[in-house]
Amino acid sequence: MKLPGQEEFDISSTCENVATGEPESGPGSGLSPDGPSDTDSRELGVPKDPVLFIQLNELMGWPQALEWRETGRWVLFEEKLEVGAGRWSAPHVPTLALPSLQKLRSLLAEGLVLLDCPARSLLELVEQVTRVELLSPELRGQLQALLLQRPQHLIWTTRTRPCCWSAHPREASHDEEAPMKEQHQNPLRQKLPPGAEAAAVLAGELGSLTQPLGVFVRLRDPVVLGPLTEVPLPSRFFCLLLGPPTLGRGYHEMGRAVAVLLSDRQFQWSVRRASNLHDLLAALDAFLEEVTVLPPGRWDPTARIPPPKCLPSHHKRLASQLREFKGSSVRRRAPAEDRHSHRPHPPSPELRRTGRLFGGFVQDVRRKASWYPSDFLDALHPQCFSAVLYIYLATVTNAITFGGLLGEATNGAQGVLESFLGTAVAGAAFCLMAGQPLTILSSTGPVLVFERLLFSFSRDYSLDYLPFRLWVGIWVAIFCLALVATEASVLVRYFTRFTEEGFCALISLIFIYDAVGKMLSLTRAYPIQRPGSPTYGCFCQFPDPQGNESQWIRTKPKDRDDILSVDLGLVNASLLPPPECAQRGGRPRGPGCHTVPDIAFFSVLLFLTSFLFAMALKHVKSSRFFPSVMRKMLSDFSSVLAILLGCGLDAFLGLATPKLMVPREFKPTLPGRGWLVSPFGANPWWLSVAAALPALLLSILIFMDQQITAVILNRAKYRLQKGAGFHLDLFCVAVLMLLTSALGLPWYVSATVISLAHMDSLRRESRACAPGEPPSFLGIREQRLTGLVVFILTGISIFLAPVLKFIPMPVLYGIFLYMGVAAISSIQFTKRVQLLLMPAKYQPDLLLLRHVPLNRIHLFTGIQLACLGLLWIIKSTPAAIIFPLMLLGLVGVRKAMEWVFSPQELLWLDELMPEKERNISEKGLEPEYSFSGSDSEDSELMYQPKSPEINISVN
Amino acid sequence: MKLPGQEEFDISSTCENVATGEPESGPGSGLSPDGPSDTDSRELGVPKDPVLFIQLNELMGWPQALEWRETGRWVLFEEKLEVGAGRWSAPHVPTLALPSLQKLRSLLAEGLVLLDCPARSLLELVEQVTRVELLSPELRGQLQALLLQRPQHLIWTTRTRPCCWSAHPREASHDEEAPMKEQHQNPLRQKLPPGAEAAAVLAGELGSLTQPLGVFVRLRDPVVLGPLTEVPLPSRFFCLLLGPPTLGRGYHEMGRAVAVLLSDRQFQWSVRRASNLHDLLAALDAFLEEVTVLPPGRWDPTARIPPPKCLPSHHKRLASQLREFKGSSVRRRAPAEDRHSHRPHPPSPELRRTGRLFGGFVQDVRRKASWYPSDFLDALHPQCFSAVLYIYLATVTNAITFGGLLGEATNGAQGVLESFLGTAVAGAAFCLMAGQPLTILSSTGPVLVFERLLFSFSRDYSLDYLPFRLWVGIWVAIFCLALVATEASVLVRYFTRFTEEGFCALISLIFIYDAVGKMLSLTRAYPIQRPGSPTYGCFCQFPDPQGNESQWIRTKPKDRDDILSVDLGLVNASLLPPPECAQRGGRPRGPGCHTVPDIAFFSVLLFLTSFLFAMALKHVKSSRFFPSVMRKMLSDFSSVLAILLGCGLDAFLGLATPKLMVPREFKPTLPGRGWLVSPFGANPWWLSVAAALPALLLSILIFMDQQITAVILNRAKYRLQKGAGFHLDLFCVAVLMLLTSALGLPWYVSATVISLAHMDSLRRESRACAPGEPPSFLGIREQRLTGLVVFILTGISIFLAPVLKFIPMPVLYGIFLYMGVAAISSIQFTKRVQLLLMPAKYQPDLLLLRHVPLNRIHLFTGIQLACLGLLWIIKSTPAAIIFPLMLLGLVGVRKAMEWVFSPQELLWLDELMPEKERNISEKGLEPEYSFSGSDSEDSELMYQPKSPEINISVN
Repeated sequence: MKLPGQEEFDISSTCENVATGEPESGPGSGLSPDGPSDTDSRELGVPKDPVLFIQLNELMGWPQALEWRETGRWVLFEEKLEVGAGRWSAPHVPTLALPSLQKLRSLLAEGLVLLDCPARSLLELVEQVTRVELLSPELRGQLQALLLQRPQHLIWTTRTRPCCWSAHPREASHDEEAPMKEQHQNPLRQKLPPGAEAAAVLAGELGSLTQPLGVFVRLRDPVVLGPLTEVPLPSRFFCLLLGPPTLGRGYHEMGRAVAVLLSDRQFQWSVRRASNLHDLLAALDAFLEEVTVLPPGRWDPTARIPPPKCLPSHHKRLASQLREFKGSSVRRRAPAEDRHSHRPHPPSPELRRTGRLFGGFVQDVRRKASWYPSDFLDALHPQCFSAVLYIYLATVTNAITFGGLLGEATNGAQGVLESFLGTAVAGAAFCLMAGQPLTILSSTGPVLVFERLLFSFSRDYSLDYLPFRLWVGIWVAIFCLALVATEASVLVRYFTRFTEEGFCALISLIFIYDAVGKMLSLTRAYPIQRPGSPTYGCFCQFPDPQGNESQWIRTKPKDRDDILSVDLGLVNASLLPPPECAQRGGRPRGPGCHTVPDIAFFSVLLFLTSFLFAMALKHVKSSRFFPSVMRKMLSDFSSVLAILLGCGLDAFLGLATPKLMVPREFKPTLPGRGWLVSPFGANPWWLSVAAALPALLLSILIFMDQQITAVILNRAKYRLQKGAGFHLDLFCVAVLMLLTSALGLPWYVSATVISLAHMDSLRRESRACAPGEPPSFLGIREQRLTGLVVFILTGISIFLAPVLKFIPMPVLYGIFLYMGVAAISSIQFTKRVQLLLMPAKYQPDLLLLRHVPLNRIHLFTGIQLACLGLLWIIKSTPAAIIFPLMLLGLVGVRKAMEWVFSPQELLWLDELMPEKERNISEKGLEPEYSFSGSDSEDSELMYQPKSPEINISVN
Repeated sequence: MKLPGQEEFDISSTCENVATGEPESGPGSGLSPDGPSDTDSRELGVPKDPVLFIQLNELMGWPQALEWRETGRWVLFEEKLEVGAGRWSAPHVPTLALPSLQKLRSLLAEGLVLLDCPARSLLELVEQVTRVELLSPELRGQLQALLLQRPQHLIWTTRTRPCCWSAHPREASHDEEAPMKEQHQNPLRQKLPPGAEAAAVLAGELGSLTQPLGVFVRLRDPVVLGPLTEVPLPSRFFCLLLGPPTLGRGYHEMGRAVAVLLSDRQFQWSVRRASNLHDLLAALDAFLEEVTVLPPGRWDPTARIPPPKCLPSHHKRLASQLREFKGSSVRRRAPAEDRHSHRPHPPSPELRRTGRLFGGFVQDVRRKASWYPSDFLDALHPQCFSAVLYIYLATVTNAITFGGLLGEATNGAQGVLESFLGTAVAGAAFCLMAGQPLTILSSTGPVLVFERLLFSFSRDYSLDYLPFRLWVGIWVAIFCLALVATEASVLVRYFTRFTEEGFCALISLIFIYDAVGKMLSLTRAYPIQRPGSPTYGCFCQFPDPQGNESQWIRTKPKDRDDILSVDLGLVNASLLPPPECAQRGGRPRGPGCHTVPDIAFFSVLLFLTSFLFAMALKHVKSSRFFPSVMRKMLSDFSSVLAILLGCGLDAFLGLATPKLMVPREFKPTLPGRGWLVSPFGANPWWLSVAAALPALLLSILIFMDQQITAVILNRAKYRLQKGAGFHLDLFCVAVLMLLTSALGLPWYVSATVISLAHMDSLRRESRACAPGEPPSFLGIREQRLTGLVVFILTGISIFLAPVLKFIPMPVLYGIFLYMGVAAISSIQFTKRVQLLLMPAKYQPDLLLLRHVPLNRIHLFTGIQLACLGLLWIIKSTPAAIIFPLMLLGLVGVRKAMEWVFSPQELLWLDELMPEKERNISEKGLEPEYSFSGSDSEDSELMYQPKSPEINISVN
């Protein structure tokens, strides 16, 4: 369970570029003109400044053929022109040399600074700029002509042509005020938000000058300066740095320094408001105060640093700046909140206890009712189509896999058909009624494990399974309703990461164990034929028509076909394969008749192929190949593609591998039962009461599974506007429990991974983003329609079920293994177990390792391993069915750990439980900080964000 | 072939930390006190300064419990104390804030600077330091007591205890002059070279002070200052920065700034020579001039930057510094050489033509003869033992794999036994005679491919293979001797990377194709049994004793065993498996008797398992798990371990997979031949002349294969002292060719990868290296003994040959595939092919891509692909045997490319050919540089060094 304040530990919360819902993501959060960050900057009293595109035009070719060429550009990061390759470099963090900044400062201090210049065109601007005393009239004319020259841009349209230089670089263009066609076609334009402005920096060496010339212009009204910038944006700033030739590329470096300064949000903020040269220089000095310095011998200044995933917060910077400009109006904000952002937040309103029976439930219904019409209207967006397709495929894969496995585990009491029907009915109903309609219902891992145990229990005691199961379902519904009535959902805050990881690890291990176990049992069903084992012995014996002896006839078989068909010189016996033999009325005899060769190893091959292929496809996402859309597709549909590959391989070789069993018509998989389960069947009456016991266990499991998912989905970072509905969701699950039990369909709860994928496919993101900057997150399209359509489509797919009989079981086992491995690798516990195998020297730079002694981390991991071992032992005894209770016992173990570990350690290793949290927030969080001062070196950069804990459901 | 100047493009040449042989690796090249870099600094007139260990002790616990605690340490990089975790951080590039440097400057300017202070103990030093006017007597006493307090160090012994704080931090220690036991046990001490000095920086906030106190001391004679530093080194510098409490951690940051300054080689150099405060401040200003600045909004100042693989050259820095100190004596050095290090070097002396018949050969013999005694004496080092073990295992693996494959390709004319014998004899002889005794001889890929073609050719024309082969060998020896006589080896410089890559890619593709092909042919030999195919039909028919009809007897078989053994109700027939049937005198009859089930898929499994396991083990080297020794072992022995795993799996299941054929006794694999091949056999006499034609082709192949390897081994970066012997090596190969042909053993040439592995296992490296710094390379133990012992052991291993019959062939095919895949992935060509699939946006930041337009790169790759396609087509026709000629044709294609590509492009994509190179070096290399000035931004960091081209031989 996430304590709401815990979000602070995620990388997302300290990154301005990553989707965050924290109110502290400030005005620095990117280019989104309509993002929530707006509210924030307004709150701070700052109107949002337009985004600035900065271009450096350099004077080249001195002395023969002077021309301006664009050699660098900035929005957030620097892109450099690779002159030789004719391409733009990858965006990178700009690095400067300190002297170039200092030289720039003195050049500007002595140069011409025009703030709020009224020029309305390039021509006017050039006239203003060249009105400097030190220039002789002829030099002024030469300079003006030079400045009006059309610069050469490298406009790089990725799709059509790899690169194209803007044509006719040196033609005397008299229409220099009108932007060129190339400029309008520039794909960079679409990356900049509307309202963006440009800044042109012109730098270079001019032999005819005797003194350096530095001009800085802020235009009163930004205007498009003709072909000056590669994108036809209105320019706000103009900077000219020219001088006599020097050694090195001094003016180039000064030009870069201006550009980097202008690309700095805070410098920009100050310069937009500067009223004189002094303000400008003060802004430069403020910038210098904050730069990071790398020592020369330890860092190659020419190395390019890729854009960090996460940028420093602009808070302190802006707050202090504001104090300067506006006095004390914002002073209340800065110190406390910025210093320790680890402070826990109060629980979200949905998890606050009302104290009334069904109080939370009523609140949930009220809250969601008001949004109900918008839940359908908000779906009218093309993005929802692709979301439907994606989630539909994931849901169907899920239904097939779990249906197939349930069918096998329950000996046909559940099956693929039930899985499809149940998913469609339960899912659609949930989408219509639930508190969080973005949730996708599915049979999840824990419930599958429980059902398997329940079935083997009922088989051991010769119970009629489906009626027994109906009573379990009825009791679960009753217990869940009781939990809704008592507002038990607020207790989810006691499920810390420790509990979640135990939950997830156990289920994942069961998945892995089962997948491998099922695979091995296949090799028992289709034994491998070792040398010396009775492989060959099978022939076909026909009934003796005379009722007497078979005759051996001394005729040689003429050819191979002859041998096969009828006689081998034996009357009434042949070497026909068993199926054909039976067809012709014969009887296969011999020890080799019932073995099918090659199936065992081919099954192993299919199993490994589908597992490895799914794993490999999953990793395509982070490779460099193919366009990102294609990569995402391959990665998202990894399970589907792996299943298809397995089926293709199987069909190609045409072997008799065991296949998924699908009924031929639309009727329950179990022969002879109707759709409605009779309440008693062959069971004694008291079993309906006794079923309350397993139902209690299942209720615990369902409560944990459902609520952990719900909390993850409703995390603040997803910025949901319509609120959560924990109680309402649990209510819906209870009702659907009743329905599915009565119809003999699988049981359903919310599935974490598939629901997260659903949310992800409905993300609203800013379309405009600077090179090197990830798109910023604006929110989720919260609505009920996509889910509803997905489940309707799933319902229709029941008629596709006959196609499913071509899916070999080993392929499904492979996918099952993949799910288990993917789930267990996603939790922090696994990373800590890996730490056990790593020498301290090679351990990654995790925040955890910076703050907790290694032996304490190992102790924590050891306790978790011990708990897991205990759970596994219980799972292997006849008492296996009580494992949900044991899972709940993890909460107790976690509580007991408070005597072993300090709150600080638990904060880093796990989370705090509600009471502790309260204590801590009163007396401040980290004593070690108070000891060593404010430890400013805790970069969040290296910290791996916590991934969803229970992702055992799909993909 | 490497043009000697080409080395400059490798990453190693610009990195001071990586093994380089370039004379320009300056005094910055690490801590090696005896490395070649010494010569260089002496040449520059600079005596080498001792390495400095810098420690920051911070004053903590104000106001109640004052204590000094070590919170940071530096040699090259920064290590920070993680207070919470009680461990040292990973070494990282230190970052500073500019204001802390400026504050430090003013504090030092006003503070006390003692240069050449004569203090001889901590007590004396403390007295000197506190003799400041601003201190009142009681404050002085308090401060003295404080400074004499024993500081707390975290001494981290990796092996014994994870961490231990030095005990009794606050005891009033009167023996403060004697270093503690912990200090002596500090493992860090072994990492520092003898002669290293320490610098202690003490910083903190002291409430009783009213004014900041800054003291900088350079001791005249370094002394051990008791427990002040964690390592008991004599301290040279001492810096004290104390002041009244401020906001933030100002003094901590200033302390870090001093430490970073002192860790800078150039600042240290200046400060060691400074004679007054002014020099000190000038050194600080010089440091500031060179720092790299990161803008605040784009870089999180708290992020830790891992040590770069490659540090900037200290040349320019030192040269300019020297100019200041020593006038113009070194001025001639700096500008030309530093600016363009791409200038080609003259060819190495071994490859210069003498113009006399056998001139090069005679020179080689003379040169090597003088080293001959030392070639045995230099082997007396324990490192040679492990090298022998490693190379022995690699050689044996090689002998098994190639022997097995040759045996199959030549239908037993060659075999494992021949492979072992030949390797031992040829290898040992070569080690004793060759010009480059570090070379390991092996049957390599190209020769294997040729032998396969030669065999199928001789089979097609019904030739007696071995006698024919003998004549081919005789002719090859003659041709090779002619090549030695004419000093043809100097032509290797015409083999550019283009040729090498074509060579390597073709052979690798043949490997991959053959491995998969052989695997598929196995599935034909052991057909998969589809449903409906005649699987089951096989029974055992016994001869009819009466010569009459078989009788059907109506007795039911009693049990399963009964069915098996004798009768099925049929007289004279049973279902016994074929081998047993034959044993009992019966005759297996029926279509299923000759099929062995399960073998096909199991072979596929073995094949994939050994391939994937070898690949995975190869990558263990770059993982974080296990100590580095173990990782290296797993990675180095990946083939051996994969073969062992395959054998284990096969033995466990006990199936009748096809195994490696090994003769039972010590005799040639081909039955009926003696060890000496008769010169004519069944062939006509004129064949001995006609054999000259294939021999010409083989000579080309052997020349290319041998010389490409030789050039790679003799590259300057390995710093070989005893010189190469290209002509002598080729001579030895020719002689051995004759010998092996006469004995019917495989043919041998130098194998790149295994020889490189041999050199690598004999590297001499500096043992002392600073945290974060890779050990520096000192040279190779050049000797003949390790190779000789390896081949003697291989010879002894012939008696182990019977064990080899347990190796299944599919495992060897898997290793074969692994070799092909590993070889083809190591060449730049593959990277360029991958670029074709990558959208420009996601391409890695290769230097190549910065300098050559993408479409030109693709054109070059396209031409290479076309050549490869052509070669493949030729290889598939009956003219396959002429492929060596076609490989040589690549040189022509490369020459023709000079009309299509500019020299600059070819320089980046390939290398220059000798003539062009001469032109270029006359008129300067890169016009684009002259256009855009000296492009200082070409970081070599991102550039992938060129890996050995022809690594088809082993591992």
